[in-house]
Amino acid sequence: MKLGRLNHIGVATRSIADSVAYYRETMGAEQVTQPFDLPAQGVKVCFVDTPDAVGEVGKGTQIELIEPLGEDSPIRGFLAKNPAGGQHHVCYEVTDIAEARAWFEGLGKRILGPTRVGAHGTPIFFLHPKDMMGQLTEIMETPREH
Amino acid sequence: MKLGRLNHIGVATRSIADSVAYYRETMGAEQVTQPFDLPAQGVKVCFVDTPDAVGEVGKGTQIELIEPLGEDSPIRGFLAKNPAGGQHHVCYEVTDIAEARAWFEGLGKRILGPTRVGAHGTPIFFLHPKDMMGQLTEIMETPREH
Repeated sequence: MKLGRLNHIGVATRSIADSVAYYRETMGAEQVTQPFDLPAQGVKVCFVDTPDAVGEVGKGTQIELIEPLGEDSPIRGFLAKNPAGGQHHVCYEVTDIAEARAWFEGLGKRILGPTRVGAHGTPIFFLHPKDMMGQLTEIMETPREH
Repeated sequence: MKLGRLNHIGVATRSIADSVAYYRETMGAEQVTQPFDLPAQGVKVCFVDTPDAVGEVGKGTQIELIEPLGEDSPIRGFLAKNPAGGQHHVCYEVTDIAEARAWFEGLGKRILGPTRVGAHGTPIFFLHPKDMMGQLTEIMETPREH
């Protein structure tokens, strides 16, 4: 397997509205997507776009803001430990999700649940932070250009 | 201020050697820089290069691996709380470090120490995570092309 693009870093927050205000007003973000619910994952998300190396906004690694959705949201535990929110996961792209899953399984890494559709509409899965140098790691298939 | 490129995410580790093996063998990294000491910051660092949106390795957001250097290293506390290591900070680029410092000072954000030379050889400073939605945030001046 080849290391893919760092698609986004996931940042947990109690309030996407507060975080969006922070990224716009404090950090100067120019593009933020509309928030939407991902009920299967128990989260509400939106993306802050960043520029790439030549300054094109939307081509750099995104910031995924994640707010708990529902009482059983898996990020409630994270927010209980980190009341201000903070860095929650990293997400790398792969060209073929089934191949990537087989790769990590072959290495004995713990995969958290089935492969499912993620926030960008492509298949994703998560790997256990204890097997990934302390980082909750999402693997996502690169979206195809339309 | 405009949100700049996400230059790197800082990942703390007990052992850069172990982390480099992980990024190469588990994650498939193709380019990793040589580690070097930053005594002024009490850390040893190296960078894992990632591809950008068109697949060019070295143009994407980097992973900065940081290992404690010396007994007083500021990341010893982080590693005591997170023995496996993990996500430590985020670093955004700005075009003018003095202007950025004045911007954050004007907003009443706590700046951690003086502006100093960072791992990429350009001026940097850090902002307190409690003022930055739970994220220790580094601001660095974009390196000039030679």
